[in-house]
Formats: sequence, structure tokens, C-alpha cells
Amino acid sequence: METSTFQVTGMSCGHCESAVREEVMQLEGVDEVQVSSRTGELSVTARAPIEDNAVLAAVEEAGYEAVRSA
Amino acid sequence: METSTFQVTGMSCGHCESAVREEVMQLEGVDEVQVSSRTGELSVTARAPIEDNAVLAAVEEAGYEAVRSA
Repeated sequence: METSTFQVTGMSCGHCESAVREEVMQLEGVDEVQVSSRTGELSVTARAPIEDNAVLAAVEEAGYEAVRSA
Repeated sequence: METSTFQVTGMSCGHCESAVREEVMQLEGVDEVQVSSRTGELSVTARAPIEDNAVLAAVEEAGYEAVRSA
């Protein structure tokens, strides 16, 4: 298992969290997604290493912007 | 046609607007729903007079609070 974290901007409520979660959960190998509209933090746990760009694209698909956290 | 307006609190984004719109559109006789998360204004146009309480209940079902505007 490998967890990577991202900072998402633009989420304002639980609907926004759900939109991000749904897109990221569709990525191959993703097991768990935690996301907070309050902090903007997105945590992605996957069975295999997952490309940052795949996560960033999924977030964008949901209508938000993200960057990989340090 | 009759249009009534309500003030909704708690909406923060387009997802919230959609949640309210979907619930209110299900009410019998409703033809058009306009809703703004920015102003909180909800405008409901119906073919026949519609009970305020029906609209308020639909908004509550969506997870928000509303009052009839003056």
C-alpha cells in the first residue's frame, strides 16, 4: 500500500468532496480516498504506485485543481 | 404560471444548487427552478399554485434551510 497526498483548491462542501472522491476512486489500483473540503487535503491509498498525474487529472475531471503535497 | 421566491441558506456551490433544483423540480406542477448559491435565492415557477411548505420540505430534503421571501 502506498499513500500519496495532494492539495486541492476550490472545494466548498460535501458535494465537492464526493465529486473528487468518485473520480479518484475510478483510478486503477486505488483502495481508499480521503478528502476534506475544509483543509483541501486529498489522500489516496493504492495497492500499487500511482502516477501523480493520474490523480491530478481525476481531480481536474471533477472540476478542481490540485498539486502534489510535499 | 405563478412564481414564488425563497431564501435558502447553506448552499456553497453549483453542486448545492443542483441538489436543491433536483428536489424542487420533483414537486407536482413545477415548471422552472432558478437557484443561486451566491445569493441564496430560489425561484419556483409552477403551472398551479404550489404550497410554500412543499417547497420548504423539498429544500430541507436536499439538506438546506429556506424561508419564503417577502
